[in-house]
This record gives sequence, structure tokens and C-alpha cells, in this order.
Amino acid sequence: MTTIDLNCDLGEGFGAWEMGNDAAMLELATSVNVACGFHAGDPDIMRRTVELAKARGVSIGAHPGYRDLHGFGRHPIVGLKASEIENLVAYQIGALQAIATAAGHKVTHVKAHGALSNVACEDDMTAKAIAAGIKAVDPSLIFVVLANSKLVKAGEDANLPMVHEVFADRAYEDDGNLVSRKKPGAVLHDAKAIADRVVRMVQDGAVVSVTGKVIKMRMDTVCIHGDTQGAVDIARNLRQALKDAGIAVAPFKRAA
Amino acid sequence: MTTIDLNCDLGEGFGAWEMGNDAAMLELATSVNVACGFHAGDPDIMRRTVELAKARGVSIGAHPGYRDLHGFGRHPIVGLKASEIENLVAYQIGALQAIATAAGHKVTHVKAHGALSNVACEDDMTAKAIAAGIKAVDPSLIFVVLANSKLVKAGEDANLPMVHEVFADRAYEDDGNLVSRKKPGAVLHDAKAIADRVVRMVQDGAVVSVTGKVIKMRMDTVCIHGDTQGAVDIARNLRQALKDAGIAVAPFKRAA
Amino acid sequence: MTTIDLNCDLGEGFGAWEMGNDAAMLELATSVNVACGFHAGDPDIMRRTVELAKARGVSIGAHPGYRDLHGFGRHPIVGLKASEIENLVAYQIGALQAIATAAGHKVTHVKAHGALSNVACEDDMTAKAIAAGIKAVDPSLIFVVLANSKLVKAGEDANLPMVHEVFADRAYEDDGNLVSRKKPGAVLHDAKAIADRVVRMVQDGAVVSVTGKVIKMRMDTVCIHGDTQGAVDIARNLRQALKDAGIAVAPFKRAA
Amino acid sequence: MTTIDLNCDLGEGFGAWEMGNDAAMLELATSVNVACGFHAGDPDIMRRTVELAKARGVSIGAHPGYRDLHGFGRHPIVGLKASEIENLVAYQIGALQAIATAAGHKVTHVKAHGALSNVACEDDMTAKAIAAGIKAVDPSLIFVVLANSKLVKAGEDANLPMVHEVFADRAYEDDGNLVSRKKPGAVLHDAKAIADRVVRMVQDGAVVSVTGKVIKMRMDTVCIHGDTQGAVDIARNLRQALKDAGIAVAPFKRAA
Repeated sequence: MTTIDLNCDLGEGFGAWEMGNDAAMLELATSVNVACGFHAGDPDIMRRTVELAKARGVSIGAHPGYRDLHGFGRHPIVGLKASEIENLVAYQIGALQAIATAAGHKVTHVKAHGALSNVACEDDMTAKAIAAGIKAVDPSLIFVVLANSKLVKAGEDANLPMVHEVFADRAYEDDGNLVSRKKPGAVLHDAKAIADRVVRMVQDGAVVSVTGKVIKMRMDTVCIHGDTQGAVDIARNLRQALKDAGIAVAPFKRAA
Repeated sequence: MTTIDLNCDLGEGFGAWEMGNDAAMLELATSVNVACGFHAGDPDIMRRTVELAKARGVSIGAHPGYRDLHGFGRHPIVGLKASEIENLVAYQIGALQAIATAAGHKVTHVKAHGALSNVACEDDMTAKAIAAGIKAVDPSLIFVVLANSKLVKAGEDANLPMVHEVFADRAYEDDGNLVSRKKPGAVLHDAKAIADRVVRMVQDGAVVSVTGKVIKMRMDTVCIHGDTQGAVDIARNLRQALKDAGIAVAPFKRAA
Repeated sequence: MTTIDLNCDLGEGFGAWEMGNDAAMLELATSVNVACGFHAGDPDIMRRTVELAKARGVSIGAHPGYRDLHGFGRHPIVGLKASEIENLVAYQIGALQAIATAAGHKVTHVKAHGALSNVACEDDMTAKAIAAGIKAVDPSLIFVVLANSKLVKAGEDANLPMVHEVFADRAYEDDGNLVSRKKPGAVLHDAKAIADRVVRMVQDGAVVSVTGKVIKMRMDTVCIHGDTQGAVDIARNLRQALKDAGIAVAPFKRAA
Repeated sequence: MTTIDLNCDLGEGFGAWEMGNDAAMLELATSVNVACGFHAGDPDIMRRTVELAKARGVSIGAHPGYRDLHGFGRHPIVGLKASEIENLVAYQIGALQAIATAAGHKVTHVKAHGALSNVACEDDMTAKAIAAGIKAVDPSLIFVVLANSKLVKAGEDANLPMVHEVFADRAYEDDGNLVSRKKPGAVLHDAKAIADRVVRMVQDGAVVSVTGKVIKMRMDTVCIHGDTQGAVDIARNLRQALKDAGIAVAPFKRAA
């Protein structure tokens, strides 16, 4: 039976501010990426998120981002040294590990957030520094990498276990890269179309590009969103469609 | 041979800002308390501090404080719930553990910083929450407690290994508490007097109060400071005086 | 014709995080207190809030709080000096003044936020420091003070124009103080009861305490909330009830 | 008599952290650029700095930077919209204006800090947004612009009064731009050479490039530094050399 993981960013509030519908997404995702306090999240939100995930048998990962609360980690910060990126990744992983331990759960993966991830997908230095930060803390942590990005090579070089990620709601170029958000059609919005597309992607082990080209691609996890009601509906629809197609949805296993 | 530990707060810069003379203090202290990013410190400074400590064979501990960069953790923040204190302590410990792992060192103790410590010394809820945060992360971490404070009972109740701390440069009341900093004579400044006083304290296992009363007290570590040149000189003088008196200076061992 | 102002806290998001229903409240309030970046708010949210207020003919005031984004300014920060409070109030007023100027609007009042206000209501030093901060920037700014609190005396001593505020949804003690939120019944939730109560308060120039005592009190503005849908409904109901009772709702004028 | 202004960045501490020798530089500079809390500075440090400047008859300007305390405003933050830059500049100016008013002084100029300035020197959007932020608050504020940069055009388009700035300790390319800090020789360190060079620059109204080319350039102010003892010594030497050469050192006047 074909199996796929659905991963989602969670715990993205800060203090009195909330974001997204974490409770709903914890019913739909099988792995969650927990914000660690630099772009969102705080110790209390992390604790609640981890406890909810544990209660539902959902895997948790650290979701380190740039130090940028105001910009939600969405702005590239230019000029950080490799050691600075490595340390900020290590710090955030450790913070979540301690909270997870306190809650009786365990951090099993790491996925970079927002601009840190976007930059790393195209920049060797940043990609390697993220991998180095993970490896320095625990070389058995699973590195979630965007399929076809520079993160893949960085993870391989660091000999980290990896899972490859595709996006449910993003269009792909012929070369297997995501279509830039600046271009029209980069983000898909129709719940039915997204569900059909992902089912086919998982069944075929391939994405179809904007020009119709079929691109074979390893995919272990599909990124879903829960920051708006529309996003939750899309995720719910997708989960049902996968079930209807006989595809099992389950947390990813450690990959070679 | 009598042995005593000298502990010192370190890594208290932030970004481009420096504080204190860490290099000098790493020659004098045997245990250092590393700021973890909430009141001071950042991942890079933590990394450098841990690496320096490792190179010198100095023990490291987490030094969690309130979330208060601007106030350097010196202002009590009123109204935090026990769970919030527990989580912020756990978060900071974990962050340092990851950085320490990355640097090949290990966090062996925890000491609360500034206002968090001051509040806890007199407030059961805060003291217990700090102990709970430590225990939830790793019950083998040594809890550094101010001798005679509420921290002692909190650590005992949590069954944490503890070491008792006295201050080199603070006067004591007859009941064994520190003289409030608001009172004249609360802080000692004369290097010779401080050195003589600490040597006697360690030899006798007792402090002499402001009225001359001898108070027997368990003491495993003496807190020294390095934030000014004067402080460094006091610490250097003290270390020499202990040596001259035949007292060994070494990192504290895990205590029952 | 009796006239009353309705004031509401606005612009309380931060970066990507939103809070409350500002658009709805700008239809209901006649004066709004704009968060200035220390406990909530940022330059962009301030700009949007001021522009919306200007478009609706709503007065704006600065709403300075403690430096406490994570705690939303709700935790007392102990140990600040009078000069520190004065400066943080001045800074926040100035920031909003510049944003208001940029948007073609004008800051006409100041109301302290959250814990800063709560502390000041009972602490002379803090109350005087807030008044000093306002006066130092512009002595013609209207100081919004909780009726019967220490803020009144501080504003009088500073010779600031003042308006006295009552709460729509809070119970009062016999001495005219608010019932502590820790006591049952401190906060009212029934929209009809709140509307009836405020209409009577405005008509009588008095509040009725929890024991039924009628307490004469100057009242120029009523504080309303918009942080939940329920709060918006309460405010809408109140505004209609005031209209039905023939009470005009309009921004407060400068008071002697 | 030829007159030149010497400008220096000041008030760059934060909370308990200090930076630079403000007292020494206030004896040497005739205009100071005061950090406004986003990359450095806080209300108390701003107040102290403004009071010291007033006492010495030194002009003050706002020194707005990116929101980046940890990076000291030295990292470009990519992706900010023009309106976001305009608002953060306006906010910071206003905050300083209020503090200056409280201290009986007046903000007369604005100079962008660090990465915000560096980006703006080469990016029209950022340069125009800074000028727009200044103009929106007060069109009579003097805009300090790096001679030959994109800031000049932005200031002209906004019709702001401007002063042109040259650097005492930086080498220039043949096209009048600063030699990149990444190249050897970009920064000069010899106090005597710097003083001789600046005296000649002011006398000739020209800089000499790294290849010896003489480039005529309007210059109203020379940027000096005070962040290290060496920097203070260089500034002191320069001030004396200007005096010896019969060049008056005085705050810049509003320019057309």
C-alpha cells in the first residue's frame, strides 16, 4: 500500500497572538513542524503544541527560522555567516527538544522555515549550515528537504537521514523547481484540483509541471497549510481524497 | 583537603554588545553559568562561551532568566504562571544543551539568573516552577541554590541534585539571608577583606553575619563576578587566597 | 443633550499577527487608543490604524505600555525608575505623532495600557511618571484617566487636560474602584445588562457598586472592547442603546 | 573661512549594554546621529544622549535603522515594501523628536544607519522610501546623504534640504563611490594619514581616489567614528588637524 506523510507548520502564535487553526490541522497532518521562538512560537505555545501532537500520535519536528519575529521569518537576512546559521538552527532544535522531553514527546525531524528555507534552497552555504546545525545536535534527526533543492545535496553531504517534500498547492517548473510566487498561477487555490493533483503525484511518484511535463521525483511528505479556514478545508479535502484513493497517510519513517 | 567551586555568570553579551571579561573569568572560575538568550546571550555567544569553557575544563550550566533583554533580566515580571516559568526554564536549558552538544561539551548544572532567582528565593511557586523546569528536561542536572533560600526546599521536593551557593561579596543577616542591596553595606568591595572572609567561610563552613553571628551553612560553590575590571581583580585575589590557604578550587561534584 | 465618548484599544496586532476587529470597532468607538510598538503595534499597523481613524473622523490617542511584546503589556515590570517610565511614554507618543503626521491626522490624547495603567492606578510614582512623559512631549495632550484612580491626581498636578474614564463591563466596589478581576463578577458579559447599565451611568453621572451604592463620578468616556466577536457585539448593542436613550456619542473635548 | 561639520553615530547602547565612547565623541563631533531603538538605543539612552548633546551645543539627528537589534542593523533585510521603510523611518524620527522635546533640544537632521543606508545608496526604492518617511514627518528636516549615492537623487526629488557626507577613513573609487569593505585598503587606519587626507579634501572640495584621480565633490559633513579607543584618537587628531589648517568645525546649516 502506498503511504505518504502530510506535514504542516504549527505553533505559529506568539504570546497573546494566535495564528492558524492548530487543533484542526492536528487532525489532518501526520507530522508537524513546530515554530521555535525566533520567527514565531514561544515556550508555552511549543509546550501546548507538543502535548497536542503527542496526544494525537503526530510526529514533531523543529521548524527553525531567522531571528525575525516582526517579519515572521519571511525576509531573507543577508550576511549571516555559516557559523551563525548553524548556531541558530542548533539553538532552536535544542529548545524544542527540551520542551518535547518535558511533555514526554520526542523531536524526530527538522524543517527550515520561510526565508531561511527559501534562501537555503538556492544557496549552498546556507543549506550546508542548516545541515551542520542539525548534525551537530543529533545526526539521527530527519532532515526534511524540498525535493530538487540545494537542501538535498547538503543533507547527503552531512549524511543525515532525509525525507523529500513536495507542495500540495504549488505549481512546478519543467526543471522541477517551484514556480516563483511572483508569477501568476504559482499557488493553487481550488480544493478539488489540489486533491486530484496530489493523489496523482503520490500514485505516480511524479509532479506535472506547468507545461505538462511529467517529472519523476522522490516524495515522502506533502506540505499542507492551516493558516486560514480555506487552507484547512483544502487540507481536509486532500486527506479524504488520499483515503478514497487507497493511499495510507502516516508519519514518515527514517529514510536512508 | 577542603575543596570549593567558584561559579561565575558568563556569555552576557548580545549581538554586537559585549559585557564583562569572559576570558579572564574562565581562568578563575571552575563553573560558569551561561546566559541562554532571554536576558542576555545568543546562539553565537553561547557557542563561543561553551567552547572556551571546554578548552579550559570548566563546567557549564544554563543560566535561565526572564524574557527581558532590555532590563537584563533584572526586573521581576509579575503574574507569570508556574507553567510559564517551567517552560521558559526548560526552553533555555534545551537551547544551551544543543549548543553544548555541538561544541562537544555538556550542561551539568542550572542556576537561575537575576530577578528570576531573586523572586524564587522568596516565592515558593517560582522556586518550584524552576525546579520543575529543570527536572522535566533532565533530573540529573545539578540545581545551584542560594543557601537558606526557598530554592533549597524546591530542589529537595523535586529530588534534584543540588549544590548550595554563597556569595563572596555580599553581607548576611542573622537569619542567614543576604542583606538587601537597598541597605548600606550589603555589597563588599574590598578585595582583601573579601578574600579573607571567603577563606574563613570555607574553612568554617559558616558565614559571619553583619552582627557577628556565626551561621553554619552548607556551601559548595562561591559566586564571583567579572562584569568590571574591579570584579575581575577581586576574583583573582580570592582565587589566590584560597590557594594560599590550602583550599582546592575545583568544579562541584553532583551532590545527593 | 448629554454626550459621551466611547474609547477602544486598537492596532494591537504585531507583524503578521492580528488581534481584534479594528474595522468593526472604528464604526463604534469615537476615540481610539493606538498601540505604539512596545506591547503591540508596529509602524505599519499604526499607519493603517491612524488612516482608518482619520477616514472615519475618529480621534486617536497614544496607548503606551511596558516593553513587553510577549506578555502583551499585561505583566507589571517591577523596579523601573520614574525617568524610565517617563521616557518610554514620551518615546511611544512621539512615534505615534510622527506616524499620525505622515497620515495627516493628529494625536490628541494618551491613555496608558494594561499593566502600566493598572500599576499607575495604585502607585503615585508610576502615575506621576506617565503624566510627566505626556507633559514633556506636549502639555496640551489629553490624559485619559481612570475615574477615582491615582492617575487623576497625577494629571492634576501636571496640569494636563484630562478626561475621566469608566468601564462598560466592569463591576465597581463601594469606594469607586474597579472590582479586582480575581473576584467573581468583576467582568460583566451580558450585552443587554451592560447597555442598560452604561445608559444609566451616563444619565446619572454615577455608577452603582456591587452592593447597590450609587457613586457620583465624573465620566467623559466609556471604555469598550473589540478583541472578540462577543466584545464587538456588546459594543454595538451599547452604542445603539445610547442612541435610543437620546445620548449623543462623540469624541471627548479637551477638558479643564 | 572654510567650515565643515563632523558627524558621529551615538547612543548605540541598549539597556545594560554600552557601545562606544559617547562622552569623548561629544567633544569632537558637531552633529550626532542618535540611534532610535530599532538597531540600538532605547528611550533612556536617547534621553541621556540628547541631554549631553544639548549641553555641548551639538546638533542631533535621528539615525533610523532596520528592526534588527541582534545584528545591530548591519544585515540587509530583503523584501520590505516601500511603505514599510517609510513607516519605520517616520516612527524612529518621531520617537527621537519626542525625547528631544522632553530634553529641550530639537531634531534637525536624519541619517540612515548601517545596512539601511548601504542598501539605499544603491537602491532607488529604499532611498526614496527613506526620503518619503522624512518628508512625511517634517519636510524641513535635513537629509544627510552620502555624496554620489542614490540618496542624493531621492532627497532632491523629495525636495528635502540636504547635506552631503564624506568619510574620513574610507577609500574612494574613481567613480566617486566608496571602495567596498571587502577590498583591501577600503578602510584607512593611520590617524596622521586620515587627518592629512581630510584637511586636503575639505580645502579642495574633492576626494582623491585610490588611483590618484581628483574627484570634485560637494561635502558638508565628514563622518567620524567613536566605537573604539583607536577611533576616538583618530577623531581627536582629525579635529586638531582641521583647526591647525584654519578650517572651522561647526554644525552644518540647512542647505538648499
